[in-house]
Amino acid sequence: MSAIDDVLKADEIYASNFKLGHLAMRPARKLAILACMDARLTLEQICGLKTGEAHIIRNAGAIATEDALRSLIISHHLLGTEEFIVINHTDCGMLTFEDETLSKQLEEKTGLRPEAPVHFHAFGNLEESVREQMERIKSHPWIPESIAVRGLIYDVKTGRLHEVNGQAARKAG
Amino acid sequence: MSAIDDVLKADEIYASNFKLGHLAMRPARKLAILACMDARLTLEQICGLKTGEAHIIRNAGAIATEDALRSLIISHHLLGTEEFIVINHTDCGMLTFEDETLSKQLEEKTGLRPEAPVHFHAFGNLEESVREQMERIKSHPWIPESIAVRGLIYDVKTGRLHEVNGQAARKAG
Repeated sequence: MSAIDDVLKADEIYASNFKLGHLAMRPARKLAILACMDARLTLEQICGLKTGEAHIIRNAGAIATEDALRSLIISHHLLGTEEFIVINHTDCGMLTFEDETLSKQLEEKTGLRPEAPVHFHAFGNLEESVREQMERIKSHPWIPESIAVRGLIYDVKTGRLHEVNGQAARKAG
Repeated sequence: MSAIDDVLKADEIYASNFKLGHLAMRPARKLAILACMDARLTLEQICGLKTGEAHIIRNAGAIATEDALRSLIISHHLLGTEEFIVINHTDCGMLTFEDETLSKQLEEKTGLRPEAPVHFHAFGNLEESVREQMERIKSHPWIPESIAVRGLIYDVKTGRLHEVNGQAARKAG
């Protein structure tokens, strides 16, 4: 049996005990999280969130790509969120390679080059990356200044979040 | 107290009982999920996944954007996933507006127009959208044919997943 069949089977149990059909489309805590896709981050558990409370946007590296910005704009303007958190984590895969090297490897491996070049957004410094993403979010013309944007790093060895201070860290740098 | 402070406080409890420091970077079930950011989808619960088992990529509408494709390519080539699932859901916010109308509204509301135009990827038909995303994933030159790509729709009223059959549905259309 494939992993996907396991998912469908697990959902039969979930649906048989389901009592959340009343939840509204708008996130109850007015919160949106942009986090890494890493399998070790079960965000609802880490953040103490119940189903229905927050939008969760995830990609490789918790990068504020155009797609993540699109999602955050929809989250705020159409669905009423007022606080954004960026969450990345220690031991992130994005620290382990460089964009150009990976692109070359994939071209050699597949013999193909995609029409649209793939920007992988690998990075070398975790805190610096979180600060950059916070900055990209805050500077988007369609994300109002009233939105709180804060950045956190999750330690995959201890389960602990710690905050990245955008302002102070920039001054120090 | 803000929602973000609540998150930090909740994590103190999570970290104090933390026993998952041994988990590997590679997802144990070799599975990656591309799902909508909607607050009503607690994917690990719906899919029966434990922490460490699957990559979870999320954006508004579970769209296979360049960013989602980037994440899936990293997921497979660097971190060994072999199956991809696209999960969207009933009552999706992306069914409630049109790209151009929203862009105009935001330009009027903010008086600003972003340098890079924002493509919101709103859609009118849920099953059709899931099929399109499956197709985009399968046709990317850096996603090998060996990867199983399947599409599911989650019913927010019942908790039930049902499968969208890409091939058959396309023939019927």
